[in-house]
Amino acid sequence: MGSPSTNTFSSLDSNGFTNDSKMVIDFIAEYYKNIENYPVQSQVKPGYLLTKLPDTAPYCPESLEDVLKDVTDSIIPGLTHWQSPNFFAYFQSNASTAGFVGEMLCTGLNVVGFSWIASPAATELESTVMDWMGKMLKLPSTFLFSGNGGGVLHGSTCEAIVCTLAAARDRTLRNIGAENIAKLVVYASDQTHSTLLKGVKLVGIPSSNFRCLSTSFSSEFSLSPQSVEDAIENDIKAGYVPLFLCATVGTTACGAVDPVMDLGKIARKYNLWFHIDAAYAGSACICPEFRHYLDGIELADSLSMNPHKWLLTNMDCCCLWVQQPRLLIESLSSNPEFLKNNATNLMFHIRSHVNLAKRFESLVANDSRFEVVVPRRFSLVCFRLKHNDACKASELNRKLLAAVNESGRAFMTHSVVGGLFIIRCAVGSTLIEERHVDDLWKLIQEKAADLSKKLVPLENE
Amino acid sequence: MGSPSTNTFSSLDSNGFTNDSKMVIDFIAEYYKNIENYPVQSQVKPGYLLTKLPDTAPYCPESLEDVLKDVTDSIIPGLTHWQSPNFFAYFQSNASTAGFVGEMLCTGLNVVGFSWIASPAATELESTVMDWMGKMLKLPSTFLFSGNGGGVLHGSTCEAIVCTLAAARDRTLRNIGAENIAKLVVYASDQTHSTLLKGVKLVGIPSSNFRCLSTSFSSEFSLSPQSVEDAIENDIKAGYVPLFLCATVGTTACGAVDPVMDLGKIARKYNLWFHIDAAYAGSACICPEFRHYLDGIELADSLSMNPHKWLLTNMDCCCLWVQQPRLLIESLSSNPEFLKNNATNLMFHIRSHVNLAKRFESLVANDSRFEVVVPRRFSLVCFRLKHNDACKASELNRKLLAAVNESGRAFMTHSVVGGLFIIRCAVGSTLIEERHVDDLWKLIQEKAADLSKKLVPLENE
Repeated sequence: MGSPSTNTFSSLDSNGFTNDSKMVIDFIAEYYKNIENYPVQSQVKPGYLLTKLPDTAPYCPESLEDVLKDVTDSIIPGLTHWQSPNFFAYFQSNASTAGFVGEMLCTGLNVVGFSWIASPAATELESTVMDWMGKMLKLPSTFLFSGNGGGVLHGSTCEAIVCTLAAARDRTLRNIGAENIAKLVVYASDQTHSTLLKGVKLVGIPSSNFRCLSTSFSSEFSLSPQSVEDAIENDIKAGYVPLFLCATVGTTACGAVDPVMDLGKIARKYNLWFHIDAAYAGSACICPEFRHYLDGIELADSLSMNPHKWLLTNMDCCCLWVQQPRLLIESLSSNPEFLKNNATNLMFHIRSHVNLAKRFESLVANDSRFEVVVPRRFSLVCFRLKHNDACKASELNRKLLAAVNESGRAFMTHSVVGGLFIIRCAVGSTLIEERHVDDLWKLIQEKAADLSKKLVPLENE
Repeated sequence: MGSPSTNTFSSLDSNGFTNDSKMVIDFIAEYYKNIENYPVQSQVKPGYLLTKLPDTAPYCPESLEDVLKDVTDSIIPGLTHWQSPNFFAYFQSNASTAGFVGEMLCTGLNVVGFSWIASPAATELESTVMDWMGKMLKLPSTFLFSGNGGGVLHGSTCEAIVCTLAAARDRTLRNIGAENIAKLVVYASDQTHSTLLKGVKLVGIPSSNFRCLSTSFSSEFSLSPQSVEDAIENDIKAGYVPLFLCATVGTTACGAVDPVMDLGKIARKYNLWFHIDAAYAGSACICPEFRHYLDGIELADSLSMNPHKWLLTNMDCCCLWVQQPRLLIESLSSNPEFLKNNATNLMFHIRSHVNLAKRFESLVANDSRFEVVVPRRFSLVCFRLKHNDACKASELNRKLLAAVNESGRAFMTHSVVGGLFIIRCAVGSTLIEERHVDDLWKLIQEKAADLSKKLVPLENE
């Protein structure tokens, strides 16, 4: 047995660390320089990587140059380029230099923060930053640590939802007994993110107790308070125990906003836990002109939003604030005024995306072949090619979207709301400029024209 | 409304990215150079950061120089230095250059991988790496994607446990009905990590249905198969439904190992889901001389281990493998031979820590004032100052540990097993050398000597 006193490989020596890390910085910077040259949506076929990588981990270390060559040859072709300014698909995931260097510091110091003493700075910085963020959103002080509320940084909305559901469940089961868990009922709209149902199942509530309430064009796909109240009354009559109501500010499919105030009143009336999922649009609420979408937040027990979507924070980051139920009665809000009339950089960032989405919306609206399907509120534009025949309209738009995405020049996704196939243009790349929106519109028009030529024979079928 | 075509602040321009990022690399490299100069355990008082940071987020951007100065002045004093070679406290959290640059690539490309098309490389690389890691551990092929098993990368054992418990719960509830969730019972030893009880509660199983079975010195704190079987029989008689058995390979408090094979047989007999938590010691099992601790793994339904503890992976990374229950009957293991007699770097890394722990163990054993309390198996040495009076022994060792930690020269933690207060010396810093272990031992001896001087009057009290 040899001497254990020195490592034969230096896994963390200072010079190697510096040289290797800087090589990776240059690699990433080069990636961003070239990002518009890649097809936005990856064009590989399932299983592509299996043929490129060995069956077992390499036995011996490889040089970083070789590793980066592998990344270039094997990984980059399999990436969908979320940071491309031509990415208009899922809600954005904003990278930024600030987000990146923050993550580097966190990863580089490699601190573990499971308790205060495990690293006091980790715990205390989390509390401080949660209060900062809460103040930017003008949350009632009861959601802040400084107001006896508080919050926690999660990786995803799913984690936030699971913790919130468990807290709500246990609050109620303490009164009615653990054996009654299968009586608990959760309410949300059919536009709610699927992560809620996942959370419901994870915490042990039967999925048959999830009331997925219908929405429609008439309410712009927002959840009707009356439908919630009706469902609650029915459940009570049937012997169920209404537990949890989730409202969404900025739904995934079409950016709909549930009426927080009215839903909150119902939640109070029936003593439900009331959660606001503002994963995407919560970021916009730092701007005074969007803050009204959170009006009524004082009636909520909890609120979650994801800085990794629209606030320049690299993955992963979800803020969850929780208000002590006993403190809800006094819905006092200090509503600090510090952000009024103060166009900070983050507000500029949000507004530039909203303005670009408005620009795109007006391009769509001015072309009689197209229609904006759901009113735009934030940076998501839901549109489609018009067609009198509903089935053919879906087919047509599906083909249009495929043609755009297959070009590799831009990437959007679709959704189905109210039975209609719609195209989602989600504006939000950190790198986006006006020209990317204009190019996207030209691309869409070009593909629509191709399609209408091809469709002439189809129309005669 | 101004033109939205250009950002007034460049949140991701290539030059700024490169310059700022390289400045942070230099900062982190400097931190590692100086890491031994900081007190290992943070010496700040609770709330220290509140006085150092403003009440609200800064309105305007600050230069990176100023931000890094804040990190130096406000954050670093609040860190417990997990990467210090004098950190012998909780199980290690190994940073490495490879781990860091991997995280940089992941963060820099900022890819979101929630579905295959969201970024094919993310999904496929995860599968490939899980199979690589499974082969390094010589898992039966039924745990690998290539053998119709599979796995997933989580952030923590808690996530892995929650998912596993939910899968087990649903498999059983499908047979007995969702309304019987409060009858499900989970078994583990009193040495099991508290994350299991947390998971049990999170998935909706009453905490009163968690059987925390006693262990003792006589079995070196491993879980007795007989006690598990007795508990199961009692529960069945009482109308409960035994659900889940968790075995630990390398417990947190004292590094104990539960008998996987014998427990697995009981799990099969009563049709329980059998999970192996090898968060810490799983890494060691890539070395042939430790692999026997996983013998019987073919009887398990799932296995988790954390590369972020002992395999040079920066936070966070927990591997969870799951075997399809229907495939368990044929416990065929391809047991690839490729690692035999092949001292890879990772094995060297593990063994160098184990050797340093052995060295420390022999230093303790050769000093008649001390005793090794629980046999060392991996890199954790559990020891204490001897004393005939049990109460005084605890007091004495508590004081010794406090004196060592308050010196700032090293950091260890404690545990209580079998009613004894023990000091845990967990060897595992990436930067550790023989001299750090020797210095630790000198420090302990010095503080023990101080204490015995001070204790003379105490003894007369």
